[in-house]
Amino acid sequence: MRDSKPLLGGVELGGTKCVCILGTGPDDIRAQVSVPTGNDPAATLGRIEHVLREAVATHGPFHALGVASFGPVDLTRSSPTYGFITSTPKLGWRNTRVAGRLAQAFDVPVGFDTDVDGAALAEHRWGAARNLEDFAYITVGTGVGVGLVAGGRLVRGFSHSELGHVRVARKFGDDWRGVCEFHGDCVEGLASGVAIAARAGLPAHRVPADHPAWALAAHALSQLLHTLVLATAPRRILVGGGVIEARPALLEQIRRGLLSSLNGYLDLQALTGSIDRYIAAPGLGQLAGPLGALALAADAI
Amino acid sequence: MRDSKPLLGGVELGGTKCVCILGTGPDDIRAQVSVPTGNDPAATLGRIEHVLREAVATHGPFHALGVASFGPVDLTRSSPTYGFITSTPKLGWRNTRVAGRLAQAFDVPVGFDTDVDGAALAEHRWGAARNLEDFAYITVGTGVGVGLVAGGRLVRGFSHSELGHVRVARKFGDDWRGVCEFHGDCVEGLASGVAIAARAGLPAHRVPADHPAWALAAHALSQLLHTLVLATAPRRILVGGGVIEARPALLEQIRRGLLSSLNGYLDLQALTGSIDRYIAAPGLGQLAGPLGALALAADAI
Repeated sequence: MRDSKPLLGGVELGGTKCVCILGTGPDDIRAQVSVPTGNDPAATLGRIEHVLREAVATHGPFHALGVASFGPVDLTRSSPTYGFITSTPKLGWRNTRVAGRLAQAFDVPVGFDTDVDGAALAEHRWGAARNLEDFAYITVGTGVGVGLVAGGRLVRGFSHSELGHVRVARKFGDDWRGVCEFHGDCVEGLASGVAIAARAGLPAHRVPADHPAWALAAHALSQLLHTLVLATAPRRILVGGGVIEARPALLEQIRRGLLSSLNGYLDLQALTGSIDRYIAAPGLGQLAGPLGALALAADAI
Repeated sequence: MRDSKPLLGGVELGGTKCVCILGTGPDDIRAQVSVPTGNDPAATLGRIEHVLREAVATHGPFHALGVASFGPVDLTRSSPTYGFITSTPKLGWRNTRVAGRLAQAFDVPVGFDTDVDGAALAEHRWGAARNLEDFAYITVGTGVGVGLVAGGRLVRGFSHSELGHVRVARKFGDDWRGVCEFHGDCVEGLASGVAIAARAGLPAHRVPADHPAWALAAHALSQLLHTLVLATAPRRILVGGGVIEARPALLEQIRRGLLSSLNGYLDLQALTGSIDRYIAAPGLGQLAGPLGALALAADAI
């Protein structure tokens, strides 16, 4: 049975770590190895190639490779910088050629997209967004990213969605400047793991549960959801990523903040059946990101 | 030549006036009559029916009717309130049956959508969004509405886009509470004609050009555009409506505010070719709304 589906390779480039994966889907993951993202993309991409070659040596060759990367990335096929990470605030990674390099290294079709777009595709294919034409996948980790599907397709105008960088209404009395290099107090600048750590003056995993940084991050995220709900009226919004996994109680705070902010303008409970299922954790859990890379590989064949 | 296209009827229900129109397209408008919207929907819909019957008596019957309405409206075909205006803040109009009533009155196919969705369709068919798969149409009038097209289709999750009601970052030091009944200082609450008048304490058309209410409205609108650009990366954003028509200089303030707010995160000039063409007035001018109703009629045949 295992041989009936083509073996796929994937790389999820994250803000903190890069996950290399080999398999055919969630029930058949044959290898999964992480390497730190670091600030030296050439070295990191070299390590990724090494890890994938070792996996191939054990499990056999993959038929396509998916690369799901933190953004922004250039997805315009005709662009000279297609497959690059572009204006990222991440030190060292700005204007890095990613897809082209990995395609050369392995000589297979390469699917390339943002990490959150990949995760959205994986949730659509295998997870909590099956049969939905309009939904969003949000990750809250080192940064805040949104994969947005409308009418059955990832939104794709001149680029991909970048809703993590919207500037939202602040909680009354909070005038902390935020950490986004471009926007200061955009959602990523207020609610990412980096932002929570900066506000609390502690690594995020050591910030106590009752520290106000959490409620303030939840406020910014509920504002992001207010925006998202009114932008494309998605039928489900999945919220994952390292920050949410480490503190799942945030999800309930975000739901309450969203309902409070909409203030009855839309009856979400009636429109969606259940606010708890409407704003939910990804069906694939922590695997949404790495499986996103496999979904991109599958689509590249 | 005129007889080669079917004659169409249209009604644009606006916050202040309702425009009844008969024709086949922008080059062949045979009748156009406005009635005040008022606070008594039964009386207004009666007047609209009367106006349309008079137009038919002169110009002959129409083959389909398009209704482009201020929102929110119910667009779910299977819903018992399909074709209704739903939770509008507009006095008297909440939960009003519109499409069903007009379909009964004229016994033709009726296309029903929001005023801004209709205008977006008209701009796509005849105006400044021809050949674009991803764009937005914004109207700034009594309210603020956004018609959003992604991947060639109006976004349509559990409902239509309602981006006029997003809560955005405020201009530093401005804490005016805004006028939206649901959200106070959402974009509509800060930048609509009603908001500008309330802030200045004068009817909007009498607010002097140097009154700070204009710059503060432009700030809120540039934040709406920041959100829109990052949500779906539209390839063009058309900004019209009574407030912009009365004060076209706002458009340049909005462009500058957008670029300042994005702060280099996206190189819009490079991505779109020209910021002036990117953020532009509707190609159909004040006719975008009424022609939107005709576009909905055409699609209903």
